[in-house]
Amino acid sequence: MPLRFAETATEYHRAPLTIRHLLNGVVAKAGDQRIVYRDRADIDYREFVGRVGRLASLLEAAGATQGMTVAVMDWDSHRYLEAYFAVPMMGAVLQTVNIRLPQPQIAYTLQHAEAEILIVHRDFFPIVEALRSRLPRLKAIVAIMDGAGDALPSWCIGEYETLSAAASPDYPFEDFDENAVATTFYTSGTTGNPKGVCFTHRQLVLHTLAISAPFGASDAAPWIGVGDVYMPLTPMFHVHAWGFPYIATMLGLKQVYPGRYEPATICALRETHGVSYSHCVPTVLEMVLNSAEDRGADLAGWKVTIGGSALTRSLLARGQAHGMRLGAAYGMSETCPVVAVAGRRELPGDEGGAGMPDPLSLAGVSAPLVEVRIADENMNPAPHDGRTRGEVVVRSPWLTPLYTGDRKATDALWRGGWMHTQDIATIDPWGQVQIRDRLKDVVKTGGEWVDSLQLEELVATGEGIAEAAVIAVPDVRWGERPLAVVVAAPGCVPTLDSINLPVDFAIADGRITRYARLDRFAVVDQLPRTSVGKIDKKLLRARYAEDAPSS
Amino acid sequence: MPLRFAETATEYHRAPLTIRHLLNGVVAKAGDQRIVYRDRADIDYREFVGRVGRLASLLEAAGATQGMTVAVMDWDSHRYLEAYFAVPMMGAVLQTVNIRLPQPQIAYTLQHAEAEILIVHRDFFPIVEALRSRLPRLKAIVAIMDGAGDALPSWCIGEYETLSAAASPDYPFEDFDENAVATTFYTSGTTGNPKGVCFTHRQLVLHTLAISAPFGASDAAPWIGVGDVYMPLTPMFHVHAWGFPYIATMLGLKQVYPGRYEPATICALRETHGVSYSHCVPTVLEMVLNSAEDRGADLAGWKVTIGGSALTRSLLARGQAHGMRLGAAYGMSETCPVVAVAGRRELPGDEGGAGMPDPLSLAGVSAPLVEVRIADENMNPAPHDGRTRGEVVVRSPWLTPLYTGDRKATDALWRGGWMHTQDIATIDPWGQVQIRDRLKDVVKTGGEWVDSLQLEELVATGEGIAEAAVIAVPDVRWGERPLAVVVAAPGCVPTLDSINLPVDFAIADGRITRYARLDRFAVVDQLPRTSVGKIDKKLLRARYAEDAPSS
Repeated sequence: MPLRFAETATEYHRAPLTIRHLLNGVVAKAGDQRIVYRDRADIDYREFVGRVGRLASLLEAAGATQGMTVAVMDWDSHRYLEAYFAVPMMGAVLQTVNIRLPQPQIAYTLQHAEAEILIVHRDFFPIVEALRSRLPRLKAIVAIMDGAGDALPSWCIGEYETLSAAASPDYPFEDFDENAVATTFYTSGTTGNPKGVCFTHRQLVLHTLAISAPFGASDAAPWIGVGDVYMPLTPMFHVHAWGFPYIATMLGLKQVYPGRYEPATICALRETHGVSYSHCVPTVLEMVLNSAEDRGADLAGWKVTIGGSALTRSLLARGQAHGMRLGAAYGMSETCPVVAVAGRRELPGDEGGAGMPDPLSLAGVSAPLVEVRIADENMNPAPHDGRTRGEVVVRSPWLTPLYTGDRKATDALWRGGWMHTQDIATIDPWGQVQIRDRLKDVVKTGGEWVDSLQLEELVATGEGIAEAAVIAVPDVRWGERPLAVVVAAPGCVPTLDSINLPVDFAIADGRITRYARLDRFAVVDQLPRTSVGKIDKKLLRARYAEDAPSS
Repeated sequence: MPLRFAETATEYHRAPLTIRHLLNGVVAKAGDQRIVYRDRADIDYREFVGRVGRLASLLEAAGATQGMTVAVMDWDSHRYLEAYFAVPMMGAVLQTVNIRLPQPQIAYTLQHAEAEILIVHRDFFPIVEALRSRLPRLKAIVAIMDGAGDALPSWCIGEYETLSAAASPDYPFEDFDENAVATTFYTSGTTGNPKGVCFTHRQLVLHTLAISAPFGASDAAPWIGVGDVYMPLTPMFHVHAWGFPYIATMLGLKQVYPGRYEPATICALRETHGVSYSHCVPTVLEMVLNSAEDRGADLAGWKVTIGGSALTRSLLARGQAHGMRLGAAYGMSETCPVVAVAGRRELPGDEGGAGMPDPLSLAGVSAPLVEVRIADENMNPAPHDGRTRGEVVVRSPWLTPLYTGDRKATDALWRGGWMHTQDIATIDPWGQVQIRDRLKDVVKTGGEWVDSLQLEELVATGEGIAEAAVIAVPDVRWGERPLAVVVAAPGCVPTLDSINLPVDFAIADGRITRYARLDRFAVVDQLPRTSVGKIDKKLLRARYAEDAPSS
């Protein structure tokens, strides 16, 4: 027999999964709740929803249509949040421009996404001025003056607030196919130009619903409940600020948008508004901790989800010493982004026994509707024994269907019907995914895999070491060998022996293979970082891996 | 421009919203968690998932195919939970048979749903024996002996546990169209035969995700978190036990299934297993409270969602006095069922001021993705002022698309593109829906609407009254008049004046229209109830409304 399908009533309304429905009932239940932008704006949800309508009206007047790309270059703001809703809700595509990319790459992403309308904060006017001639498709630019009284540039059609105030709040948003593209942005890959990913209405709605479940129901005390005050610390241009602005808005939370990330402002906003939930990469956490320690700010009770890259033990311990509650999540640009959440357990501190997972590599357990596997090169699933490694491959309803315009990379991404993350991990019998390495960063030496992230973490704990990165470098005898690139602590001069001290302890304890013992290192003033704050291994490899010291 | 759609990778996997994906990662994160059935079974999630596979294997061996209806007649059990997953996951349709219906109606629903396989608990063997000759489509019956050593009936193909133990746990569940029908059951309407509703995989998955959000993130202390222990107290044949078994399983909670609802067993299971979350209609709550008070059982901290019908103030106060946390939810068979949840506030007790909503009528605020309106007869939306009444009409992705085989009722259900609930409500400026009446139960007297539920509640508080129902009866002069049908408290003889005492107070306070003052009543030994425990107004109307005392 075939599957059974139901006939429907003549006037049956199917209710597609479009972003506008995340706002259903929000004004009713949270109309008086606040959405704050630094000390410059403080609106309630009622006004916010009106402003979403106004933005759509003004964009339509500026020529926006369904299917058109509307790009935004802004710091984290209530206006960005308005664009998160208004642009997709009118059927257009929101491009969240990575403002930290080099100018030529920004131009490339705007061209490639075929952006026709741009909303831009005054801090980025110089970039727009430099690039404008290379963007002939751009037919309207809306300027965000953000309170400054300067004259508007000649090339913009008007100022955001002025246009918004004149536009109608009653834009007639309608339903349409939930598979329409809602957002696009570019991920700086390991080679070549940034790659465009995109997400549909259906995908964003499902991500919002499914990810709010483990964060809400995670524990006796939820990570995110309606009593929480939310402030993003992952930029809004970066994978929808991990999707949390959509979750926070759906739940009707008080939200605080910090603009450009300045540690003093972040700490002040946290105190003034009682921010209780945020998310960020370890670098931002460190920045916040430094600032808080300088000014004696209170961080107790702040729940922060950490992702993007490994959290070191020392950073974890520092956060916990301040009374912060830290938990991990896992994902990437291609995955919308969350696919795993450390649900049940908080990150263990140093007191964790031998059975506890290494906090720096803990990525959590798969979120609802997500299938996570570790697979070998032939896509055979590896056992979940906490030891066997494989590439993390994922299935879920919210993974990017493609790299825009790059068929070859797209098909590689989805080889075998699973999305390839290029992360090497183990999964333990409790489903906890632990990232061990990047596929590109694995050190294969003498037939053994060396855990470059673990080695990095060990080296970083050494005396006289401020920061460390480990990459693989070619070696005639061993195939590859690990190279430690370190930043020395002030006044210290690391030696191979001092660097190897914590590694030797770990080898003696059986925590790492003896092949990990370093036979080479380099000292640098600072480690190069990507636009999202990760150590730029691509650059390190270019610098060291092609001209490595021989063994 | 048209909407933008993304091309996909050659091997892109779309990940449909099918019920099997609610189990993703569950064994990994909750493999050792328990699922308990009375004192008769206690399995972990690992075993549960294996048993889901075994059930599908045994059903396939019994002839089950995609699209076929597999019916279940059982008390609340782990086996029922297995059917919730296994039957839809293999592409078949699960019919949850309302075992409280009269036998001819049970036969009607099995015939109408075209059930070909039946899984039946021994308590219902007499019904099956009586009906079997009228069910020629039925080709296989699986008997649940539930520990009894009796001989199997000749008409069954085997015993559930025996067949399960012999079947393979590795059933190859596959993905398919998320719009395939997953479940069907019958709702006893106000007239004629029960009406069949059905829900698709997509609908059940979305209901599970969206409803877990407000219950998880409702408050600083969530209604449902992973630390909770769940026990249904709404039968599993009734709208998927309000969807909570799917939510509890997705979250990996400990679950306790109480079998047939016996108050002493329920209280004992609650104590033994630390049950912390349940849901039920007020009648079951009362039953539990009576039993707990008899045996001095501890109910403190038990979170219970109340729905299905109005909670009286006295019952609410009794529950709160025991330290229970009570909250309302709103929905019906046609809505999967939850469409509104009392998220932020618990039900207020008697101490509530004038601004507090009437707890007996509070239905909560719309859940994520749900649009709730109150509309007049021409589908014009009424204002959300807390005073203006209208019929509750709903849109959301999880409303039944039809009444099976009843085109006329189906089209009336969806008239104007909204699902009609037949409930009369107000919505206040905070989005709180308050049910005031049933469309069929409104008393229109002298051009005024009288709140039959409010009047009922008032009468019930009167001295000498144990229970009360109010219906409209025809009246030559006024069009309609309210009639109170009351059950007298032991040794009491109600009079019209004694019945009107609390009504007069309410009129004097302006809480109810003076048209509500009763001019007629009837005393009965007990109020008739429907199979799900609601007062059977249909029967009362048949008894009184056609031969009403004249004014």
